[in-house]
Amino acid sequence: MTMKKRLLLISNSTNYGEDYLEWPRQYIKEFLERTGIKRVLFVPYAGVALSENGIEDSYDAYEERVNDVFGEFGCEIYSIHRENDPAQSVKDALAIAVGGGNTFHLVYMLHELKLMKVIKEAVENGVAFMGWSAGANVACPTMRTTNDMPIIEPESMNCLNLIHFQINPHYLDATIEGHGGETREQRLEEFMVINNNIYVAGLREGTLFSVEDDKIELKGGKPMRLFKYGHDPKEFAPGSDISFLL
Amino acid sequence: MTMKKRLLLISNSTNYGEDYLEWPRQYIKEFLERTGIKRVLFVPYAGVALSENGIEDSYDAYEERVNDVFGEFGCEIYSIHRENDPAQSVKDALAIAVGGGNTFHLVYMLHELKLMKVIKEAVENGVAFMGWSAGANVACPTMRTTNDMPIIEPESMNCLNLIHFQINPHYLDATIEGHGGETREQRLEEFMVINNNIYVAGLREGTLFSVEDDKIELKGGKPMRLFKYGHDPKEFAPGSDISFLL
Repeated sequence: MTMKKRLLLISNSTNYGEDYLEWPRQYIKEFLERTGIKRVLFVPYAGVALSENGIEDSYDAYEERVNDVFGEFGCEIYSIHRENDPAQSVKDALAIAVGGGNTFHLVYMLHELKLMKVIKEAVENGVAFMGWSAGANVACPTMRTTNDMPIIEPESMNCLNLIHFQINPHYLDATIEGHGGETREQRLEEFMVINNNIYVAGLREGTLFSVEDDKIELKGGKPMRLFKYGHDPKEFAPGSDISFLL
Repeated sequence: MTMKKRLLLISNSTNYGEDYLEWPRQYIKEFLERTGIKRVLFVPYAGVALSENGIEDSYDAYEERVNDVFGEFGCEIYSIHRENDPAQSVKDALAIAVGGGNTFHLVYMLHELKLMKVIKEAVENGVAFMGWSAGANVACPTMRTTNDMPIIEPESMNCLNLIHFQINPHYLDATIEGHGGETREQRLEEFMVINNNIYVAGLREGTLFSVEDDKIELKGGKPMRLFKYGHDPKEFAPGSDISFLL
């Protein structure tokens, strides 16, 4: 039997004013329950500033924070930063969760530890993959549609290419009154000038993509905004047929 | 006689609701008038989306837009994208202006055309340098404190290192109500975790740094916010002694 590719790509961990991972909790629970997975390998490398005592402590804090949430539905998190052989831990995993934070640091570490190819192969062989924010960015062909600051220089911006379009997480239409910086749509227009041939899905907070092999669904309470060079942006509500993205 | 290093590093071209380059116009005029410079080499590579007819057209449109402003005080702009030998044009210039837009594309092009070293040497030999937004980012040691989207992968994030601290242009305290993305201060805290030993100046819109050899001044109507790892952020008003930054 061929295992299916299973992805849960989440725009954001936390809606404003809510508890950590509150809104996607039910989706994560269902995603894991359907295959009876109880242990999830966690990738904390985007979380650089969760502690004032340095980055290893930040990873520890991040693992604990996520474990508290996953524990509520009977799942256990174990973090890759404490594994002696990170690549082997990926090969042994049943499910992988990649947390949000700074995408540049996450991608830096995945290249540094030679994990891009290993994770890609694992997921294509049926290991369930979930990621939120930076964790959704790395599922894309490249990290070129992240919103994050380039605090560190990764070996390459190439990512897992588990899907063949780009996600812009935390997508928003609003701007800050009186501020002259670019809108998100302007930033994506600049992306498209340089990257003509790829779709970008503006994935609003409180929404996610669920992918099962050749089926993709948008879930959550809001439409996504889809961009492609030379075309007007287009809104797609949850439930729309968006299979052309795969 | 040794020529002095002269820099004008501007947070943003345009305050909300104002004309293009309106607020810094007087500063630019004075910066050029004091040495009687009438012709300025313009670097348009950050401006990727000023035209719907492709990037060369965007550079043309950008040159015209800036020339209209500089023309008001009797200066002429000529853009490096139309020069046959870009490196030679830098060597021949009396002043260089680097426009804002996407910092990744600007840095990509400066490396691609081998201009980083050439511009640095020219400025250290007395060529006046001004830049706004992305143009201020590239005066720093690296582009790691840009706010822009990584739409293209430059050969390196290293920049001109004309000053030995980082600028975060368009610095702002406000956030978008109800949005869960990081604040600017949170992004800079992440930067400092990875980059412990460098100051970051949060340069608010409507402000700039003027540098003359060993003298630096903050100008404009607002304080800057200075960050360093392990220290609380600190505000400095225009007129404060900030010479320790150099």
